[in-house]
Amino acid sequence: MRKERFEQAQADALFLYDKAHIVLTETEKKNIEVADFALGDFERTGICIVTYVNTELCCAKEMVLLPGQTCPEHIHRATDTGFMGKEETFRCRYGKVYLYVDGEPTLNTAAKPPVGDEKYYTAARQIVLIPGDQYTLQPNTWHWFQAGPEGAVISEFSTQSRDELDIFADPRIIRLPAVE
Amino acid sequence: MRKERFEQAQADALFLYDKAHIVLTETEKKNIEVADFALGDFERTGICIVTYVNTELCCAKEMVLLPGQTCPEHIHRATDTGFMGKEETFRCRYGKVYLYVDGEPTLNTAAKPPVGDEKYYTAARQIVLIPGDQYTLQPNTWHWFQAGPEGAVISEFSTQSRDELDIFADPRIIRLPAVE
Repeated sequence: MRKERFEQAQADALFLYDKAHIVLTETEKKNIEVADFALGDFERTGICIVTYVNTELCCAKEMVLLPGQTCPEHIHRATDTGFMGKEETFRCRYGKVYLYVDGEPTLNTAAKPPVGDEKYYTAARQIVLIPGDQYTLQPNTWHWFQAGPEGAVISEFSTQSRDELDIFADPRIIRLPAVE
Repeated sequence: MRKERFEQAQADALFLYDKAHIVLTETEKKNIEVADFALGDFERTGICIVTYVNTELCCAKEMVLLPGQTCPEHIHRATDTGFMGKEETFRCRYGKVYLYVDGEPTLNTAAKPPVGDEKYYTAARQIVLIPGDQYTLQPNTWHWFQAGPEGAVISEFSTQSRDELDIFADPRIIRLPAVE
């Protein structure tokens, strides 16, 4: 991602954090993580994240999706080196979130995967979150989520986050690409 | 605690959650926990809590202190039955929090223990949190905290919460007293 695009993404995220009345320090604002998953299509597939704390035991993040933006399908698997996967609770703070998880597919889902990428999306049990709503995902669950037309701010409360161990359904994805 | 006092405490907590722009469901509002620690002195020593999630692995809460109210000194100790203590991060969302933890005492602390109860307060290393500030407490750390003049709303991100295992410095305290 180019620096100008990165800075615009941070500014857009700040606008939505502000809508959700999330107070951030100046350091947190400068360090907002902008993830485009190396797809180069940030408006459609991407996410911004402020990580408040991430120890060996637990983690809390504040995530932003722009209007209609999708966080692509992935899973937090246990590893044979001791990582137990990641249990995570999403709580919607602003906007609307369409969350899709493993299980009985929902008929007529409200959100659709990004056009052209449908083959990388299989989880289709729909959970809709509006402010105050939350959902807890167990480890080893395929999931993806997309914001409604106003974007979304989502708190995540979880066990340790190890992004480098995330497995994405789309093999083109790199979770931690470089900023140019 | 009498029912009328309990209901007033919930209403006061809702006022402060609203100041912090925390969105709660109707069920969460009805179930706000009001803790007076069986001291019968809620205005001075007490806390209100909404627990978003508390699994075997992690926990997230939204806590409220009324203006000047104190959450009394306690510790989350490891047990020989497998509980590893509680690692917890406090993040201030509204107001001001004076947090006191084990360690080198701060000279001229901004807050004082409730008058008459000083003997139950030993932690005196001061950390001041305003919105956006946070502090992570390791397990087995004595700590207490008090709100500034506007009250405080504090998010807590932690490992599993087992209130019944909290150890308080004040032997009169019962963590989970009954509502009459």
